[in-house]
Amino acid sequence: MEKRIAIVRGDYIGPEIVGEAIKVLRSIEAKYHHTFIYDEVLAGGAAIDATGECLPQVSIVALKQADAVLLGAVGGPKYDSQPANNRPEKALLRIRSLLGLFANLRPAILFPQLADASPLKPEIVQKGIDFVVVRELTGGIYFGKHETIGDLAVDEMAYSVEEIQRIAKVAFETAQVRHHKVTCVDKANVLDTSKLWRKVVKDLAKEYPDVELNFMYVDNAAMQLCKDPSQFDVILTENMFGDILSDEASMLTGTIGTIGSASLGSTSVGMYEPIHGSAPDIAGKDMANPLGTILSVAMMMRYSFHLEKEAQDIEKAVNTILDEGYRTADMMSEGMKQVGCQEMGDLVVKQI
Amino acid sequence: MEKRIAIVRGDYIGPEIVGEAIKVLRSIEAKYHHTFIYDEVLAGGAAIDATGECLPQVSIVALKQADAVLLGAVGGPKYDSQPANNRPEKALLRIRSLLGLFANLRPAILFPQLADASPLKPEIVQKGIDFVVVRELTGGIYFGKHETIGDLAVDEMAYSVEEIQRIAKVAFETAQVRHHKVTCVDKANVLDTSKLWRKVVKDLAKEYPDVELNFMYVDNAAMQLCKDPSQFDVILTENMFGDILSDEASMLTGTIGTIGSASLGSTSVGMYEPIHGSAPDIAGKDMANPLGTILSVAMMMRYSFHLEKEAQDIEKAVNTILDEGYRTADMMSEGMKQVGCQEMGDLVVKQI
Ligand SMILES: CC(C)[C@H](C(=O)O)[C@@H](O)C(=O)O
Ligand SMILES: CC(C)[C@H](C(=O)O)[C@@H](O)C(=O)O
Repeated sequence: MEKRIAIVRGDYIGPEIVGEAIKVLRSIEAKYHHTFIYDEVLAGGAAIDATGECLPQVSIVALKQADAVLLGAVGGPKYDSQPANNRPEKALLRIRSLLGLFANLRPAILFPQLADASPLKPEIVQKGIDFVVVRELTGGIYFGKHETIGDLAVDEMAYSVEEIQRIAKVAFETAQVRHHKVTCVDKANVLDTSKLWRKVVKDLAKEYPDVELNFMYVDNAAMQLCKDPSQFDVILTENMFGDILSDEASMLTGTIGTIGSASLGSTSVGMYEPIHGSAPDIAGKDMANPLGTILSVAMMMRYSFHLEKEAQDIEKAVNTILDEGYRTADMMSEGMKQVGCQEMGDLVVKQI
Repeated sequence: MEKRIAIVRGDYIGPEIVGEAIKVLRSIEAKYHHTFIYDEVLAGGAAIDATGECLPQVSIVALKQADAVLLGAVGGPKYDSQPANNRPEKALLRIRSLLGLFANLRPAILFPQLADASPLKPEIVQKGIDFVVVRELTGGIYFGKHETIGDLAVDEMAYSVEEIQRIAKVAFETAQVRHHKVTCVDKANVLDTSKLWRKVVKDLAKEYPDVELNFMYVDNAAMQLCKDPSQFDVILTENMFGDILSDEASMLTGTIGTIGSASLGSTSVGMYEPIHGSAPDIAGKDMANPLGTILSVAMMMRYSFHLEKEAQDIEKAVNTILDEGYRTADMMSEGMKQVGCQEMGDLVVKQI
């Protein structure tokens, strides 16, 4: 199989973690006789440094040609003084919109080997954490009208039936290959968009009789995540709520360095990135945890290339390394073996 | 001192918990020679049952005459089929707006006696949880335009400079009598309203040189609350984010039955209510925890009547009862003495 992968290394620790993920990609190429073509693409802070623009035209062209995008992490204090429409985060939002990546899949999985890292107490953690947040990614208040006129600022949150249907479909289908349960999170006691979500999701649910559907207010969901995360299988929600809840969820697993994510659209093209940020404080020190990026590569194999075996191979390799006690600094605990970013990448590659 | 208190007993467990809070009010009257006049006001489900309307005109009149409002909890499954503009929650939103209660103060305090109830692990809990969420309550997406036209729903989030200033003032002043730290939570990398919040809050901070101010994105705040809640003193945020974060925060204390809240405006009139809901499953069983309502009464003494001594008296009484091992079912743990709602109320009264 030949595939073109756009590589956005990004800022601060971005290049380090992406470097290790590419090692993994190369080992998959070799083992399974695929050909991946790597297109280096500038976006975010690195693009501002090189061209002044957070997402230059040449990057847009390259991104549009790719079969998948691998992104490290963009942004950081260096770019705080950029005008609002040229900040590194803007590049991220534009790529999502440009490629029509309306579905953000963020697994919240507790690795049993890392259970101690969860901020939750053992009684709760023992019940397991294994769910996916399916977040709408190209609509809602992120992409509505933003306006400041004199003393008044306004942001608009809008959703159409079609936007809701297509993301809900992703959630139901995700639940079908998991534990057949979707929790739709909204604020239907206040918002018109949420009321529309409820109606559309309820209607669509009829086509998925094997999936159990329930609704939960977002304030309650924020509580339930802490109280008993084991109750969730697939959480379906709009863009803003998904931003908040998926970050809360990943913190509960205790290992935000070890979680990947996929952003998908209506074609097989997708963007894959770890959920953590660019970590300026540890940049350039070979200390970053590359596993979130490496597990994002596994998701790329699964969702964009339909290479399930390759995906599982990567996931198994990561699991084995964790079983063997290897940890980067962020995951370190007593009795474990601390390794740097590069050594961690090498260990995974050796497993593959 | 003579004060007129509007009593909204509310639905399901509402009347039970308010009944115990009134016992406490009466004991304060007796001990400190005050006169409280109790006006029973119908709002929410009880008002729908009696009059068909969630907030009838006669209730509005009574609320407007009150020096303070004590509310149990409104809403529940019985009213789910009500049209959107006549649901019990609507009554709550209307009262907030009617009385101009733009500032919602929700303490997140871990009672050391109840530390085991927190979902967080001991290492985190030991550092203590003691902060206040100052949530804007009459603006933002709650009170913006809501519109559904055909296949499209739109909610508008708007904030004016003045709305931000007055709530920020409350936060800074709250921090001045606490630990002199305000964390302003927003999504300034996406929203225009958040950008305006940052600007206005930064400007106002100059008038409070004794208060340290920092900014945090809402997704990060949702994480930090789980990771290390001890870092917060006062969290200042807009309506929707405040709804989500204050619920998450109170869950982390493990005892949502034991937390009160105050909603304040530009006069001393305020509304006081526990943060938990109407708990239909335990209604009428004398099982509810009245302490959240009783601690709301303490806040009423403090914020509306400026009776600090009376407030502390109530808070001390609750603390003593917890020290002595009395628990309602929701707080129960091994070795403690389980009591019903009424007995818990009586115990607090006896302390006073
Ligand atoms: C950087 C920011 C705009 C972005 C978002 O809010 O979507 C980030 O928090 C995320 O979740 O990917
Ligand atoms: C009932 C609901 C409208 C309300 C809100 O969202 O404000 C509640 O969740 C609260 O926090 O008081």
